[in-house]
Amino acid sequence: MTTPTPEPTAVLEAAQRIQGIANHTPVHTSRTLNQQTGHQIYLKCETFQRVGAFKFRGAYNAVTQLTDAQKAAGVVTHSSGNHAQGLALAAKLLGVKATIVMPDNAPAIKKAATAGYGATIVTCPAIEREAVCAQLIEEHGYTLIHPYDNPNIIAGAGTAALELLQETGPLDMLFTPVGGGGLISGTALAAAAVQPNCRVIGVEPATANDAQQSWQSGEIVRLTAVPNTLADGLRTRFVGEHNLPIMRQYVSDMMTVTEAEIIATLQYLWTRLKLVVEPSAAVALAPAFTGKIAPSGQRIGAILSGGNADIAQLAPLLTA
Amino acid sequence: MTTPTPEPTAVLEAAQRIQGIANHTPVHTSRTLNQQTGHQIYLKCETFQRVGAFKFRGAYNAVTQLTDAQKAAGVVTHSSGNHAQGLALAAKLLGVKATIVMPDNAPAIKKAATAGYGATIVTCPAIEREAVCAQLIEEHGYTLIHPYDNPNIIAGAGTAALELLQETGPLDMLFTPVGGGGLISGTALAAAAVQPNCRVIGVEPATANDAQQSWQSGEIVRLTAVPNTLADGLRTRFVGEHNLPIMRQYVSDMMTVTEAEIIATLQYLWTRLKLVVEPSAAVALAPAFTGKIAPSGQRIGAILSGGNADIAQLAPLLTA
Repeated sequence: MTTPTPEPTAVLEAAQRIQGIANHTPVHTSRTLNQQTGHQIYLKCETFQRVGAFKFRGAYNAVTQLTDAQKAAGVVTHSSGNHAQGLALAAKLLGVKATIVMPDNAPAIKKAATAGYGATIVTCPAIEREAVCAQLIEEHGYTLIHPYDNPNIIAGAGTAALELLQETGPLDMLFTPVGGGGLISGTALAAAAVQPNCRVIGVEPATANDAQQSWQSGEIVRLTAVPNTLADGLRTRFVGEHNLPIMRQYVSDMMTVTEAEIIATLQYLWTRLKLVVEPSAAVALAPAFTGKIAPSGQRIGAILSGGNADIAQLAPLLTA
Repeated sequence: MTTPTPEPTAVLEAAQRIQGIANHTPVHTSRTLNQQTGHQIYLKCETFQRVGAFKFRGAYNAVTQLTDAQKAAGVVTHSSGNHAQGLALAAKLLGVKATIVMPDNAPAIKKAATAGYGATIVTCPAIEREAVCAQLIEEHGYTLIHPYDNPNIIAGAGTAALELLQETGPLDMLFTPVGGGGLISGTALAAAAVQPNCRVIGVEPATANDAQQSWQSGEIVRLTAVPNTLADGLRTRFVGEHNLPIMRQYVSDMMTVTEAEIIATLQYLWTRLKLVVEPSAAVALAPAFTGKIAPSGQRIGAILSGGNADIAQLAPLLTA
């Protein structure tokens, strides 16, 4: 680790930096959902965040913390997902040049969206993206803004949960999806800062439970192949070195859900709650929605992490 | 007419009756939408109303105004759409028996949703539904709650615009979709009550412009066949006798949009604003979204009337 692991107060500092820049996203509730599950459920709708996902929060927080020399040189990352767009927009707003390394088979729409925020797109075979990133850093002096293994990304991601906890008051449990561990570790820090009695629980697709294994064992478990799950934001093979210690200290439990449970939850969010969420976001609600959490009237929060779904691809999976 | 046409103050009275029962729905805005259109646009999200559409407001208002004898006998309507669900839920909450006449080819999911709110479903050939309704009224003494040609339905529908205008402050224009005229006439009354300088504008699919013709001519124009439009909530063939006088007095303009414009607006609302809206709701935003309103920085409201969309059917129409 090149930088220290953040403390809970880092989330409070990040919240100050993004105030008025990131959207203070709404919290949705549903009488029907509460009746069906036997809980009081609060959904933090990061679908309505800038770039359509919580990723903007951490990216903006991270870029603000660069030195003037780093800002002048520019930033780089490798991502074809929401972090790419979040970093591109954050850099643009702060007048910093951003270069995004994407696999050459990334969907054209994702390249276009990222380029639309003013970033330079560099494409390469997926297997070479870390190497290409490293080369760009050496050549141009760019600063790498890692998608999740970065203290300022973690603290920024935690501001969504901070807003939720400040709005709802005491929650018994707070669920987030887990990919590389940025959102869960930031969320755990936020709860530690303002509601240490709230149980923070991470959820993964069953096919991608490396974070659960890592959290249980204390060692970073690396999947040998990209996991096969509809939740494209959670196909990360391993959590970060900054993320795991925070998860070990502050996360109460790690759960998994099946692909069928993800689809059922996604369908409910789209058709009944009228929220366009991506499959990764449905993962956070799936345990409470599918009855994995006994209906004991608990106050439950879930971070709906993003809404950048391929609707035409997913719609045929809906059963009614 | 059996009852007088409502005055603007009727909307204020309806708002008192539905307070705490209907959802006070959120108003969404988008930096990107404002940049693209050159306006300040405020979207009243009735997608998040109970039963997923504004129709609950008028139905609840109407049932509360029945006499005790009428409540004891029960209510009836003919609808396979949002009014059916709105009336079913309103009646259930007020302890009133509801019977809904639906065409026998209505989708099973719509029958199930309406029955789920406790209503009795009676099916018949579509052409006979008025006659079946009349027969039920004669046999059982039910009170007809018409989907739009009813002063209390109109006043209740206007409460969405009332909330919007109270939240945003002065608007230059306020758009609603127009089917039978319940929402546009209620909206026009709401504006007359609290912001008489706001121009209220109705929008129809070009294939279903009976209301535009009626508003221009002063006579109710009746389409001879059910119009062919994706906006299934707006396939009404004629406006109501209570609706047209209000529209003539208070509505500033009536516009039409093409099917292609409806689809383009729907796509933007789903994919960029992450809102599941039905095609009828997209109709309200279509004029401002597609550039029919010159980009002069005006403050524009649009009522996103509902979110009960058949996602699997519509998704293939999205282009990217």
